[in-house]
Formats: sequence, structure tokens, C-alpha cells
Amino acid sequence: MAGNTFGSIFRLTSFGESHGDAIGGVIDGCPSGLELDLKLVQSELDRRKPGQSEVVTQRKESDVVQFLSGIFEGRTTGTPLGFVIQNEDHDSTDYEHIKKQFRPSHADFTYQEKYGIRDHRGGGRSSARETACRVVAGAIAKQVLSKYGIRIQAYVSSIGIHSLNKHHDAVDLNLIEQNVVRIPNVKFAEEMIEYIGSIREKGNTIGGEITCIVTGTPVGLGEPVFDRLNADLAKAMFSINAVKGFECGSGFKGAKMLGSEHNDQFVSKEGVVSTSTNHSGGIQGGISNGEDIYFNVAFKPVSTIMQDQASINTEGEEVTVTGKGRHDPCVVPRAVPIVEAMTAITLVDHLLRNRTVKL
Amino acid sequence: MAGNTFGSIFRLTSFGESHGDAIGGVIDGCPSGLELDLKLVQSELDRRKPGQSEVVTQRKESDVVQFLSGIFEGRTTGTPLGFVIQNEDHDSTDYEHIKKQFRPSHADFTYQEKYGIRDHRGGGRSSARETACRVVAGAIAKQVLSKYGIRIQAYVSSIGIHSLNKHHDAVDLNLIEQNVVRIPNVKFAEEMIEYIGSIREKGNTIGGEITCIVTGTPVGLGEPVFDRLNADLAKAMFSINAVKGFECGSGFKGAKMLGSEHNDQFVSKEGVVSTSTNHSGGIQGGISNGEDIYFNVAFKPVSTIMQDQASINTEGEEVTVTGKGRHDPCVVPRAVPIVEAMTAITLVDHLLRNRTVKL
Amino acid sequence: MAGNTFGSIFRLTSFGESHGDAIGGVIDGCPSGLELDLKLVQSELDRRKPGQSEVVTQRKESDVVQFLSGIFEGRTTGTPLGFVIQNEDHDSTDYEHIKKQFRPSHADFTYQEKYGIRDHRGGGRSSARETACRVVAGAIAKQVLSKYGIRIQAYVSSIGIHSLNKHHDAVDLNLIEQNVVRIPNVKFAEEMIEYIGSIREKGNTIGGEITCIVTGTPVGLGEPVFDRLNADLAKAMFSINAVKGFECGSGFKGAKMLGSEHNDQFVSKEGVVSTSTNHSGGIQGGISNGEDIYFNVAFKPVSTIMQDQASINTEGEEVTVTGKGRHDPCVVPRAVPIVEAMTAITLVDHLLRNRTVKL
Amino acid sequence: MAGNTFGSIFRLTSFGESHGDAIGGVIDGCPSGLELDLKLVQSELDRRKPGQSEVVTQRKESDVVQFLSGIFEGRTTGTPLGFVIQNEDHDSTDYEHIKKQFRPSHADFTYQEKYGIRDHRGGGRSSARETACRVVAGAIAKQVLSKYGIRIQAYVSSIGIHSLNKHHDAVDLNLIEQNVVRIPNVKFAEEMIEYIGSIREKGNTIGGEITCIVTGTPVGLGEPVFDRLNADLAKAMFSINAVKGFECGSGFKGAKMLGSEHNDQFVSKEGVVSTSTNHSGGIQGGISNGEDIYFNVAFKPVSTIMQDQASINTEGEEVTVTGKGRHDPCVVPRAVPIVEAMTAITLVDHLLRNRTVKL
Repeated sequence: MAGNTFGSIFRLTSFGESHGDAIGGVIDGCPSGLELDLKLVQSELDRRKPGQSEVVTQRKESDVVQFLSGIFEGRTTGTPLGFVIQNEDHDSTDYEHIKKQFRPSHADFTYQEKYGIRDHRGGGRSSARETACRVVAGAIAKQVLSKYGIRIQAYVSSIGIHSLNKHHDAVDLNLIEQNVVRIPNVKFAEEMIEYIGSIREKGNTIGGEITCIVTGTPVGLGEPVFDRLNADLAKAMFSINAVKGFECGSGFKGAKMLGSEHNDQFVSKEGVVSTSTNHSGGIQGGISNGEDIYFNVAFKPVSTIMQDQASINTEGEEVTVTGKGRHDPCVVPRAVPIVEAMTAITLVDHLLRNRTVKL
Repeated sequence: MAGNTFGSIFRLTSFGESHGDAIGGVIDGCPSGLELDLKLVQSELDRRKPGQSEVVTQRKESDVVQFLSGIFEGRTTGTPLGFVIQNEDHDSTDYEHIKKQFRPSHADFTYQEKYGIRDHRGGGRSSARETACRVVAGAIAKQVLSKYGIRIQAYVSSIGIHSLNKHHDAVDLNLIEQNVVRIPNVKFAEEMIEYIGSIREKGNTIGGEITCIVTGTPVGLGEPVFDRLNADLAKAMFSINAVKGFECGSGFKGAKMLGSEHNDQFVSKEGVVSTSTNHSGGIQGGISNGEDIYFNVAFKPVSTIMQDQASINTEGEEVTVTGKGRHDPCVVPRAVPIVEAMTAITLVDHLLRNRTVKL
Repeated sequence: MAGNTFGSIFRLTSFGESHGDAIGGVIDGCPSGLELDLKLVQSELDRRKPGQSEVVTQRKESDVVQFLSGIFEGRTTGTPLGFVIQNEDHDSTDYEHIKKQFRPSHADFTYQEKYGIRDHRGGGRSSARETACRVVAGAIAKQVLSKYGIRIQAYVSSIGIHSLNKHHDAVDLNLIEQNVVRIPNVKFAEEMIEYIGSIREKGNTIGGEITCIVTGTPVGLGEPVFDRLNADLAKAMFSINAVKGFECGSGFKGAKMLGSEHNDQFVSKEGVVSTSTNHSGGIQGGISNGEDIYFNVAFKPVSTIMQDQASINTEGEEVTVTGKGRHDPCVVPRAVPIVEAMTAITLVDHLLRNRTVKL
Repeated sequence: MAGNTFGSIFRLTSFGESHGDAIGGVIDGCPSGLELDLKLVQSELDRRKPGQSEVVTQRKESDVVQFLSGIFEGRTTGTPLGFVIQNEDHDSTDYEHIKKQFRPSHADFTYQEKYGIRDHRGGGRSSARETACRVVAGAIAKQVLSKYGIRIQAYVSSIGIHSLNKHHDAVDLNLIEQNVVRIPNVKFAEEMIEYIGSIREKGNTIGGEITCIVTGTPVGLGEPVFDRLNADLAKAMFSINAVKGFECGSGFKGAKMLGSEHNDQFVSKEGVVSTSTNHSGGIQGGISNGEDIYFNVAFKPVSTIMQDQASINTEGEEVTVTGKGRHDPCVVPRAVPIVEAMTAITLVDHLLRNRTVKL
């Protein structure tokens, strides 16, 4: 029960450390007969990869994924897809000075205590580098979903205290990929690029939020009582580095509402059932109801800052941790494809699970 | 992969509908040799049960749990604990009028579509009645945790727009069970009792938030990268009926902070490592760091209101859903032991998992 | 990972000790919409129950199963089926004398060492009484299979050194239930009834073999490379008390054959593919090929004998274990419905799993 | 629930086809702090690899394993071990002629029907090439076991109708690796090498049996009632290509015995409990009792023969399948390390599971 597998039918098992030879994984349970668009997989990886713009870390990784199995004549065969991504720009000397230090709010201390040993280079397994594998699996999952008309789109909805302050229905999702911060609003995006730049100059970092919307979900996904669709999405999001909060549908605002305000009224148009409002966020009783699924994910600021910080070392002695190397001043723009990927994996898994519930 | 099992080593499999003969479950993986305090189990059930005060539903259930196996001479034997709780006050005629109706924001529609059949009586399996089984398993889990000095306490921190507005450190947890709303503040509790009363009189319902604090957790619980402790807690909470949001540690506030503010500095006192602040909420890299774990859970208002609502029936025809029977005007006071129970199950599971990671 | 759950989609979680209040279980993942014939469930239980004839134990149990959930208006709802069977004839005083003894070849010693505690009464959890729960789940599974034209029939093919010595194709399966030893041959059955009687008189026990045949299986069940259909059947059989051997298709005889003899030639008749021989036993590469599945299961003699045996007690002192109470002189006739049940559960599980492999 | 993962705590997820770029896998749950002897891993692979002697296939593979993660400064870190083995000698043109043919007793037909597509080259995923990944994981598992004094040794005990005919206690296990057939008897080994040579010359194949012995197992491994140690070993063995039978302890012979013969008497010497006979095969009630575990595994003859065979093609037309390329005349010598590997994985998994059962 080491925790490196996600999903029950469509499942990703990932491996790899930030500064090892390679990261990679196995995608098991991908349905056979899927014509794979490998360029699409690579383009998703490119959305996540470091060095793509000035608002993210300058580590250079080409992040080319190589599939080793499970594909024959361009189609999935139903056998596991093994894949690897080489680590290229892994300058471990950057990390020699922190080999025995516990960096504040990193996982250095907890890994050391839990396992009695840790690969300190770049945070080892605790590095978000591992999420590249999720993006690979997510890109495959998206292609499965697209066969069923399901689409996932996420965007940055706030940076620090600055919020887009718009209901997701009022947002032009086509604008998301038009700017490096993945904010679907030209003006606000420009302000945030500038803001993140100022954060970076101070050697600091800042948190933010991502909103994700899923359209085209059929009725019936989710397995109560424990594996509700929203429960599995919550776990999926909280499995991503730096996530501190998740709300689905009305979310924390819903806790402030009256039942008479919150209830979504069913309507039927030509045999198609829908709801006139959608505080439920497309999920009722843990099962998708066909409406748009939407949720927000809160990310804390990246722990690596370019400032001196007091801490202790493995001997319990006081030390000064010096910021050094490359870092992400704000992780949320790069986290957008990761949020989408984990959402896609979760949905395909439930799509397949749902095939088994009726006689 | 029907979703009625929670946990990987310490695991609860539950069964039962709101108006069937009984609900119950199997707790597998409970360590052997635990001297069970069955009165404690019952007292936890009593905290959750309906009819306990004027702020909750008046359904009368004695909710007596009967253990059928796994205990010998007062101790757990390592074999599964089967248990049942009879359903007593299940007046199904209350529900005949909604047999073919889809109540707004209930799971009537999604269950019907997913399974092609549903037990409409009291919401069947989608009813929160099922959570009594979680409280049973949680009460066992708490007794395991108590052997390791781990304690879980939850309280109501807001009702609707009214918030306790106090950091959990500043709260007197001894006050929680002193009032029926489980708010650890005498004056605010009285106000909220009155407020909920006014909501009830209008046949309406109101949402709220619960804060949960875990003290005494050892370092090392949580299995990255997917089964992080916070990820499994997120899933545990979102598996509870009516939950719409979950935040851990700094939560959504953390997304507004700078790295320099958010980072928790390590300090060492006589060999014991701790952090001077705790924005991480006791979890770093998905693994407990020994500090207090704390989180907030948002609950939407209960969907059952005593007002007429427009909806449709199974034929797609417009109908008026009439509020009738008993209901909870505000679910959060009764949800407190459920939040604690799911937290306890999650922690025991990770406590046992953590035994397997070192040579 | 306590081992009380079997199956991945259609899954049984069982509980209960030989002399506790009740045994029971939860069947999760049973497809919705199945019209349940509860009499059929009971009749399967009756085939297994003690006291049914002179060749089995005289313990008296009515073995009435009570379903507590998951059924509405006679049909399965897709929610878990909880069930209990009361223990009636559990005279624990029969066992007081062995409370501190380790009976030879029983699980007294291993349970004591593993868990540090054991319910000694009637073997506690290690008793075959637990298999009644499997028969309940198997009876449900059979009803699912019957919708797909799949039929399972098992019979006793040998008792001790006496073997039916007939290929299963040459056996009249209609004769199985015509006699108490479940041997589909009138004369051989009579001889064996007499033989078992003579074994019983000596206070001894004898082993035997069961042959099981599955007809009507569609092509495609089994999930290589690890969850091959034959691998899961092997596990299913070895999970039954007293099983010492399992062979599928040609089995141990197959190890003595040449490839040119063993290979099954494919033939096609009006578009239907079959094989002209069936050494593969209906499974190739771990996947069913549509031919009959058949296998043999070897059962050791029951460990409880009515003779004095030397052993030790929990203090390591030498003791004499005295045979006392009721016992099965030969377990295989009663094991027939258990073999069928575990086969049925395995097949339904794979039937449902197979729904998820194609786009 | 595609079946490419084995184990619950110590678990192998494997990928790869016979003629793809590479095969490989992820070992999750390996305890941290293990000093890895990578030469030992390679030497296990060398025991399995093709081309090692005249009695096996002449396919040439260097079978060099490359670990990509999970190891730091020579020790396991508790994070997943990703690994790959390149496919070198994969001459796919050998297989072009069978692209549309269903070879007798191969998995061509069942894979095609199950998945609607198959990689026909060398049998694709159904090839025993995949078992190299198991040997890698097994070699790691053996190193864990060796820390606990547990040792696994398997040998060939029969080829076709020719049997070693010796109780495993009377066998000199040191002789196993002294000859290419892995038979611990010099004379019989020589005869069998000659016999296999004659089989090869006829373009035929022959089955055989492997006996496996585990010494040093502590009391307590195995999780009844379903995950008995023997049940998981049965599954482990039946997950290996070409396995048709498995018997543990007394096995099929046990079915012919009386209880008074079969029962193993407990004795205690200086506080150490043992049994005077060992028909139980070291497992009682599904739990190891500290005695030697031993079992036999039957392998059918390899399906690939160098003779013309009648069959059909994907269109249902009659065709002649022509033997071509390289083949194993007898698979059992190469299967010895695979049997050991699967045994080792199963035992480590249960060793870790057993850590969680007591308070």
C-alpha cells in the first residue's frame, strides 16, 4: 500500500525522482482500440514543462515521453502502457548544500523520518517533477474522454489576493492558453504576469487558485457511498503537490446558503433532464447528474524561496537555508495541466467503473 | 469497484438503506488484542443519532449496535468485526408520495439513472443514515488511536454566514459537547440554537462548517505520491453526505500568502523537532510531521425542506415536491462525530500502513 | 489487507466465527436489476449445511440466511447486500477442553501465534463454518451467470484412493445430487457411502477430490498477466479450508505430454470458433476461449478425528488431544457447493471486469 | 482491474510485449534501507534468460536490467523502483506469417477476441518474455527475505513422464545449478538433457514439474480467510505461463490419506514449536507455521512446435500453422527462477502484511 498507484480500473503507477535517471510510469486498464495521438500527449507535457516562460522555473527539460509498450500500429492494445521521461537538466551539485538540511515546508524532514533515508537532490520523489507522469496519463485519459464527448478545461482564477472574480460561466475558456499565466482575461493576465515578476524579483513565491470545468459528463459516474465522484476528485487534487483546499460546486459558499437557495430544480426538455441552477456542481449523491462539473483548487506558495531562512539539520542543529538554484515564483500556471490530468484520470476510471453496475 | 469499502488495511465495508431492515458493516484489519470499550462505541453513536435535540431531525432511532464477530473475551481477535444496527423508526408511508418524484438536490435522479432502480424510501442508500456505520468503525478506530496518544476533536465553526471566527488554537475544546450545536463558545452556541430554530420554523435548512483537530500524530503517516495523508482525508470528508469543501492547514487562505509568510520554520528542542508556525496543518509532502493536523469541512444545507418545490417525476413530467416528514434544519451538529469517525478510520489505516515502509 | 474480502468488482467480505452469535457478509458490486430467487439461495445453503446426511457432521444448523439490504421489490439495487446467518447449535462447552491445546493440523497454533489471541470455540474463524457465507454469495453469483448462460457443476470424483476414473465428459451430471456423496455414478456412490461409514466408525477421516465443470463461458474472461482466469480460480479454490491441490485442464497429466499431443486445434463452424480437443481446459493465455472450463481440487482429510493424538498446549507442554464432539468423516460432499460458489464469484467478477477492456 | 499488478503491499506492476522496445515494471512498497546487490539481480535474470544452454530457446537477449528510480547511494529509499529491460533480438519478420493465424494453444485467439486487437509479434504481451520483470522483482524480494533468514529454492522434479521420484528432503539442493536442466541429480540430469535434445530434434516440446522449497519462514504469514498464504502462492504460480497444476504440502496425495496419517503432530523443543511430520507443507489454516513450505507446479509443454499444425485464421478460414523460428523444447529449466521469483514476491508481501495485524 505504498501510494504510487492512482485509480482502480484505469490506473497510473508512477516512479521517479527529480534527479534520478528518469521518471515514468505504467498506465494499466486503458481500453483497447484507442487510436493514440502522441503529439497531443507531448503537447500536454509541454504545457507543464519547466522553462516555458518567465513566470516559471528556468530548469530546462525537453520532457520527451517515450512509450515502451501497449501500442500496436498506432492503437492501444489493452495491455499496459509503460513510459519513461529522461531527466536531463539535473544539476545535483545545486543541492549538495542542503543534503543534511531540512528546508522549511518541504518534505525533507518527513521523508527522512518516515523512510530513514532520502534522496535529497531536488527533493527526490517529493518534487513536483513526478507530476509529469500524471500529465502523460492524463493526456491518454483525455483522448478516451473525448470519444465520449467529455471535455476538461482548467484555468488560473486567482494569484495571491488577486482574483478573477468571475463565475466560470462568464469566462471565455478560449483565452486560457493565450497567455503564460493561463488566466482567461487579457488584462488581468497581464497584471498578474507583472505581479509574479515582482514576486520573483524579491526571491519570493505566491499561491493561487485554479478553477476546473468538465462538460459533457454523462449521468451516472461515481460509486457511493465512499467512492463518490467528488470524493475521488478531492483525493485526486489533494494528491498534487502544494494543494491546500478543494471545493466542488457551491463549495465553501454553499455552507452559507439556505436549502431553499441551494437546491437545484430539475427541469425536463424533450426528455433531457437538467437543472435550472447548478450549485451541486454536476454531482448529486456522489454521482454525476449530467450538468457541468466545476471545482476550485487552492495552492499554497512554493516553499523554495530565494531568501535565507532559519531551520535545522539532520543533527537537530540550527542552520541557515540559503535559496539557490531555480524556482517557480508561482506554481499555479504550470499546475493547470496537472489539475486537468488528474481530473481526466479520475473520470475515465469512473466511466469504466460505471460499466459494471447494471445487469 | 462498487464504492462501499473505505480504507486499505483498516477498512470498513458498510451496507444498508435508510428504510431497510438494518444497516451494518464489516470492519476488517482491526489489530488484534485491543480491549474494546463497547460503551464508548455506543456513546459515539448517540452523539450522531437523530432525535437527540431540537436542532436535529426528530426521527427516533435507538441506534444500538450489535457486534456479531471478531471479539473474544472482550478483545479484538484480528478477525473481522461484523455489526448491525436495526432500523426501527422507518415509516415508509412518509415517502410513498415521492416514489416517482426526483426531489431537488437529492440523489433520487442520479441513483435512478445509474442503477435503473432505486429504493426511494427515505433516500435509500443515499441517506445519511448510512453514516452511523462509519461512526461505529470510527469509535473502534479512536480506541486504537488512543493507544498511540492520538486524539481527534471536531466542532462546528460556522452556521450559515455566522462564524465562530476564532483560530482553533484559541478555542476551548472542552466546551464542544456542552451544547447541542457543538460550538465551543457558550454565547455563540446559544445564538446559533436560536438561529437554527428560526430556520426550522420557516421549513428551511442552513449549511455550515466543521473544524477538526488531531493532536498527537506521530511523524510519518501518509503514503506519497497519491495516498498522501491530506489526500485521503480529503476523500474521507468528501465521502460524507452534503460536503462541498475541504481545506487543510492554511487552506484557501494559504493561496493568498507569500512563501516567506507561509513557510513553517523547523526548530529543535531537546531532540524533538517541531515547527514554529503550522500553516502546513501538520502534513508536509503528504506525510504527517508531528504537529497538529487541522482542517475545515463545508456542508451545504440539507436538501429536504418543508416547502413546496418544483421538480419532475420519473416520466419527465413537472410535479410539485411537498416537504413532509422529519428533517434536519442544520446537519452540522450531527456531522461532528461523522467527521471525527472518518478522520479516525483514515488515521488508523495510515498508522498501520506506515508499519510496512522500513526494512 | 486482512484477507476477508474476495473479488475486485463483484466482491464478498465475510465475517464470523464458528461459535459467535452469527456469521455473515457483504456482497458489493452485484449488478442492479437482478430479480433474486431467494429460495435458490437457501437451497444452495441447504446443500452445504451440516447434518444433512450420515456422511457429514451431525451439528444441527438451520442455516437460514437473512438479507438486510440491497434488495428492493425483489430486485437488486446495485447497493451492497448485507446478510447474516445465525449460529444456533454452538455448544461451546464441547471445546473447553481444547482451549489451551493445539490440535494437530488445525489452525489453533498459527492463529494463536499470528494474532496473540484466538477464539478457540470450534476453531473460531478458521472453521469451515465461514464458507456458508461464500455459498450465499455464490448463489447470487450463479443467478447473475445464469443470465449469461453460464452454468457451474461440481461433483466428487474421488474419495481416498477410490476414484471415479471417468473423464468428466463421460459423466452424467444429472446424477450428482441424487446421492449424499455427490458422486455421479450410482454404484460408486453407494460404495463410497459405505466406505465413509467405515471411516467414521473408526473415528477417522478421509480426503478426496472434486471436479468442477463450467459451461457456457463467453470468450474473454481473465485479465493477464497476473489475474488470469485460472490464477484467480486457483486462489479461489485454495482459499477453501483443507484444499491441497488444484489442476486446470490437462493439469498434472499435461506435464507429461508432448506439445504435439497437448495442443488444441482450432476449428470454425459457421463462424463459431472452437477447439477439437480441450487440454487447455477452456482457458488460454489466462483468458477463457469459450470451451468448457474444468478443474480438479484436492482436499486433505479433515483434521478433527475421534482418536487420541499427542500434541502440545499453549505452554509448550505435551498433552493428549481427545477427539470429542461432532465431525465430518469426509468433507468433500459438503465442499461441492463451496467449490461451485467460489467458482461462481470468480466468474462474475471477471465477467464484470471484462466489460471495461474495450473502448 | 486490468491484471498487471501483483501483490498488495510489496507489489509489481509490469509492462511490455515480446517484440516491443522494452519490457519493465515498477516495484512499489519495497521497504526502505535495503542495501541492494544489483549483481544478484542480474544473476537471477541470467538464470532465466534465453540462449543460456542447448535445452532452451536460442533467442539472444542480454537482458540487462536498468533501474531508474528508488535507489539512493546503493540503498532503497521506500519510493518505487522503476526498471526497464531492452528487447534486443526481436526479429519481428519471423512472425509476419502468423499475423492473421491463431496458433494452437497460444493466446492469439483469446487476446484477439478479448481486446479486438493484438500485437502478434512473438505473442506480444502473452509471451513469457514478460516474466523477466518478475525475476527482477523477485530478486529484490529475495534480498528482503534474506534479511529475515528466509530462503527459496526450486528445481526441476520431472520432465514428461520421467520423474526424479525423490522426496524433497532427500534432495541435495546444492546440485540444482550444476546442470542446465536444474535437476539436483547428476545422472538423471544427464538423461534429461539427452531426452530434451531428442524432443527438440523432432521439433516437439515436453512438459514437466518444478518443486519449490522455502526454509526459514516465520510463523504467521498469510491472511485468512481468502488471502491464505497457500492461496496467494497458488495464484502466483498460476499466473505464470503454461502452468496447469499446483499442489502444496501433501497435495493430491493428501486427498488419498486418512486423517490419522495426515495430521502433523506438534512437538516443542526448548520452547520452539515444530511438527514431527509436515504434510501441511508449512501452512495451517492459511498461515505459515514455521516448517518448510514446499509445493509442486505442473507446466504443460510449450505450444510452439516445429511441426505443421492445422488451425484457422482471423477470418475463420482453415490454415496450416508452420513451426518457424526459435523455441523452447522444454520450458521448465528456465521456469525455475520464475517460480522462485513469484514465491519471493508473495512471501515479502505477506511478511509486510503480517506487520499490521497486532495492536
